[in-house]
Amino acid sequence: MTRPVPVILDCDPGHDDAIAIVMAHCSPAIEILGITTTCGNATLDRTTANARRILELIGATHVPVAAGMEKPLARDLVLGTADGPSGLDGTPYLPDPTMPLDPRHAVDFIADTLRAAPGPVTLVPTGPLSNIGMFLLKYPELRDRIARVVLMGGAMYRRSEYITATEFNIFCDPEAASIVLNSGLDVTMVGLDVTMQVLIEEPEFARLAAIDTPFARVVHDWLRHYEKLHRGQMGVGGAMHDPLALACVIEPSLITTRDAHVAIDLTATHAFGATVADYWNERGLPPNAHVASGVDAARFFDLMFDLLAAVDAT
Amino acid sequence: MTRPVPVILDCDPGHDDAIAIVMAHCSPAIEILGITTTCGNATLDRTTANARRILELIGATHVPVAAGMEKPLARDLVLGTADGPSGLDGTPYLPDPTMPLDPRHAVDFIADTLRAAPGPVTLVPTGPLSNIGMFLLKYPELRDRIARVVLMGGAMYRRSEYITATEFNIFCDPEAASIVLNSGLDVTMVGLDVTMQVLIEEPEFARLAAIDTPFARVVHDWLRHYEKLHRGQMGVGGAMHDPLALACVIEPSLITTRDAHVAIDLTATHAFGATVADYWNERGLPPNAHVASGVDAARFFDLMFDLLAAVDAT
Amino acid sequence: MTRPVPVILDCDPGHDDAIAIVMAHCSPAIEILGITTTCGNATLDRTTANARRILELIGATHVPVAAGMEKPLARDLVLGTADGPSGLDGTPYLPDPTMPLDPRHAVDFIADTLRAAPGPVTLVPTGPLSNIGMFLLKYPELRDRIARVVLMGGAMYRRSEYITATEFNIFCDPEAASIVLNSGLDVTMVGLDVTMQVLIEEPEFARLAAIDTPFARVVHDWLRHYEKLHRGQMGVGGAMHDPLALACVIEPSLITTRDAHVAIDLTATHAFGATVADYWNERGLPPNAHVASGVDAARFFDLMFDLLAAVDAT
Amino acid sequence: MTRPVPVILDCDPGHDDAIAIVMAHCSPAIEILGITTTCGNATLDRTTANARRILELIGATHVPVAAGMEKPLARDLVLGTADGPSGLDGTPYLPDPTMPLDPRHAVDFIADTLRAAPGPVTLVPTGPLSNIGMFLLKYPELRDRIARVVLMGGAMYRRSEYITATEFNIFCDPEAASIVLNSGLDVTMVGLDVTMQVLIEEPEFARLAAIDTPFARVVHDWLRHYEKLHRGQMGVGGAMHDPLALACVIEPSLITTRDAHVAIDLTATHAFGATVADYWNERGLPPNAHVASGVDAARFFDLMFDLLAAVDAT
Repeated sequence: MTRPVPVILDCDPGHDDAIAIVMAHCSPAIEILGITTTCGNATLDRTTANARRILELIGATHVPVAAGMEKPLARDLVLGTADGPSGLDGTPYLPDPTMPLDPRHAVDFIADTLRAAPGPVTLVPTGPLSNIGMFLLKYPELRDRIARVVLMGGAMYRRSEYITATEFNIFCDPEAASIVLNSGLDVTMVGLDVTMQVLIEEPEFARLAAIDTPFARVVHDWLRHYEKLHRGQMGVGGAMHDPLALACVIEPSLITTRDAHVAIDLTATHAFGATVADYWNERGLPPNAHVASGVDAARFFDLMFDLLAAVDAT
Repeated sequence: MTRPVPVILDCDPGHDDAIAIVMAHCSPAIEILGITTTCGNATLDRTTANARRILELIGATHVPVAAGMEKPLARDLVLGTADGPSGLDGTPYLPDPTMPLDPRHAVDFIADTLRAAPGPVTLVPTGPLSNIGMFLLKYPELRDRIARVVLMGGAMYRRSEYITATEFNIFCDPEAASIVLNSGLDVTMVGLDVTMQVLIEEPEFARLAAIDTPFARVVHDWLRHYEKLHRGQMGVGGAMHDPLALACVIEPSLITTRDAHVAIDLTATHAFGATVADYWNERGLPPNAHVASGVDAARFFDLMFDLLAAVDAT
Repeated sequence: MTRPVPVILDCDPGHDDAIAIVMAHCSPAIEILGITTTCGNATLDRTTANARRILELIGATHVPVAAGMEKPLARDLVLGTADGPSGLDGTPYLPDPTMPLDPRHAVDFIADTLRAAPGPVTLVPTGPLSNIGMFLLKYPELRDRIARVVLMGGAMYRRSEYITATEFNIFCDPEAASIVLNSGLDVTMVGLDVTMQVLIEEPEFARLAAIDTPFARVVHDWLRHYEKLHRGQMGVGGAMHDPLALACVIEPSLITTRDAHVAIDLTATHAFGATVADYWNERGLPPNAHVASGVDAARFFDLMFDLLAAVDAT
Repeated sequence: MTRPVPVILDCDPGHDDAIAIVMAHCSPAIEILGITTTCGNATLDRTTANARRILELIGATHVPVAAGMEKPLARDLVLGTADGPSGLDGTPYLPDPTMPLDPRHAVDFIADTLRAAPGPVTLVPTGPLSNIGMFLLKYPELRDRIARVVLMGGAMYRRSEYITATEFNIFCDPEAASIVLNSGLDVTMVGLDVTMQVLIEEPEFARLAAIDTPFARVVHDWLRHYEKLHRGQMGVGGAMHDPLALACVIEPSLITTRDAHVAIDLTATHAFGATVADYWNERGLPPNAHVASGVDAARFFDLMFDLLAAVDAT
């Protein structure tokens, strides 16, 4: 049996981040070394509380949580709307967390964790990339301890629901995204081109209902709320953005990718933050990302529901 | 019977412009008031010669041709590659044209033609928009004589073959495109989202071969050449970009459209010239274009082949 | 005796344009072939009426006036404030002009005039460069008939009164300015670095009062009004922007210049329209302008007052 | 007697940084809490070694030195040329430093120092603002411990020697500069408008020679080297950029300032990094900086030479 992949989840929960956390916790293929939080779906204090609430809900309070950036590197704070003001609306609100918060800043937590790990660690950012960007700026000497980065973000052909020319995570902190893409790390971008193909619709709700555990009922409430917001904005069900990125660490064959040099547009007026993948190598630069272009949605949902069914909580 | 729609074709032939000219000439639904030429697929002198060659080939030398801009308004000249250096490669070369060239500059020709027409005229630009932009700048008082603009250009989700973030016609002269979009005219954008769905592949070549007129054999040679270049760049057959725009004047129901405010990004680094359609009205501006989002490819090809079959030439 | 320099004045009067017109008319060193008008200090209809009013005032109705662009090439119309809503406030309003307006568009007038002239002609634009830019776009083949361009515009070190990073004429139509600078023509930029050194203050008003002709009294009223507005904005008297540009055609030694490649910034957010002179050749491009860097203010005012004293009008 | 101002010097020595360090050390008005280093005039390892060399030279090894950013936040590394490859060329090279380097990253050092200080601390950055920007991003809660920021950087009217549209420190890390300007801190910008008025020319060298201490002779060699490079680039002697910023902490009346909202242009093509001071409040934003606009050069040099004469070293 292969050893689990050691990962740090960097996230802004958020309903779909929450499901990604649960999947990571339940999968034998993943070892969570820690969770770092950032702003995005909600303010930092809320995403940080949410991360701990979720861990308490699933009995995973041994996982350390460290808070990071409360705003992007070079832009004003932008908050998402798809997850509601709390970042995790739509269910009888989870109680305030009681598990401790790691006293370190997320970037220092990542540094210490990488130094302590026996081998390279995989980073899985599912929110704006502010923490990862800051980490790379402050600890350039630790870059080699990162096995790879599997991030939720970007859009090649598909566009976001309420941002006209790019995807929310990249839009929030495009400078941080540029730092990650230009870092020389092995980066896989799981963006809207594939995440908008894994939608929670009625058949998926039926499967979720069939699990019928206390935890699955909580998730059901979350996703009903999330799906309703999504449908109002886009006319389709809720996209499993962050769970798909996490799933790609467990089972890389879920997606097909194209290698390309991806640049973030930082000077655009209307296409600001666009993730421009140079598939035809017009820029003459070497690829800096594996860009997800296709997904096996059925297998993804099988994996997701299997993992959710395994949770023994509340 | 309805009266034919009076149109001015503004083009840069180009294989697909050539077919659009032929379709316009053969369709009883269209009255060509004149052809104006611009740079794009090839230099102005070549596109101007090509327009006249095509008219001579199909016996339509009564249609006046006026040459326009030899470079874009505010950018250096960019030439396409899909049509070869002559703009019309791939067949035993047509002889040099002998029909006269209208002595007026394209923008003055358009002005005179609009003033002389009994009613509003439809403009059908299938190349970069330099001539139309210049016309609007020089003759703002004649804007009301334009019924509508049906242009080939732009891309919402689909991208071009060799430009990473936009479509060739817009890329060549984005300032002119902005002038057209901001003009207050009724603009229909027939862009890559639909034109990349009307591809010449083997079944279409078989239909063309079945026409078996001397003219259809010339078109066959053109399109074989064009398809080969396209396939090398994109892995798919030749897109009927310009014929589809023209076809939408004959039969508007071929496409479905979404109304949106479309902005051209003029400051972007990597997404330069992107045509950003604000479908969610984030900018709070009224729609300035009907953006083609769907196409009935089968009906388009029926129309195209019917019109090509009607040509009695060479 | 040397022959007078044949010039076309392209302007947007405007108090200081008005004085430039008068100086050109009175100087034996200048032959005015025509005046073309543009928007800038006021709307096109007002600047065009003002040009004719001034010619009528000084008995120069033989000079043809042709109206040009009513807005910039690629930007929304911006109007100046220093000359008041009429473009020529501050004196009992001059009567509506009765001299005819040339029926041609300014760009066609320039083309015809250049074709008819026995030799190369000097262009003296003292407003936004929309007409000259459009002319170069529409008539590239006539570029060689232009001897040189001596324009009022730009700023290297000195900044404008109410535009933070550039000068008004360039700010209004930066794309047109780029076309002129990139045209390969011999361009002299008379910008704020020198024009802000030729200020109408009390000693200059005293000299003007001493002329004591009916015409000088009109000019005195204009300049009192203009100086008051200037002082409110900048704390200094009225800058003789356009008269200095015209004076440099009469007597080039009034200014010293530095040759440099000047680029207009078209993508800047805060420094939009900045005229960046690459004195250290960081861009590695050949110079495209003679940039005025020093001025002999005393000799300029001597010339200006001598010419104003020569007017026998009203 | 007033208590000395507690300061952290953030610098990239550099000849003129070196002199600023010496002046801070010798002035009874300043208490140096520590020195943090960044890249700019030379790479981080060199500027860090130089800071320690200078402290050893003047017997100030009790001052802690912490190294910071080795590259800017969102741009590639740019190195200055005025100080030579070592950052401190032009004298028999100082021996490698032996005093210890603080093990903390500069941003953590600043945080700890601010927390430990009895009252607010003044930051004096004389290099690119990468460390200060990172500090503000990572420790937003400590912003109130900063009394003010007196930085060397920016240019309103005066331009740099080899950057066409802005000043070197801002050019190197414009995003960090924006963070500092938008921080709400009390910021004084000591930029080229004043620093290019405090030039080391022959009279100043004569004063330096007259001091005739071993240390003054070292400084003389540094400045001869620096002045020679400056003269080759600009035709004037060496500007005392960083010493003037430091001097303004000792004696604020050396400069006059204008309050304005200053924005850094991050999207410009040719005016990239321009520091655009909105003196006329066109943007409608409250001032965010005191911008140095005038300087009493004679008093500055008196202060500088007095402090250099006080050094008892080597």
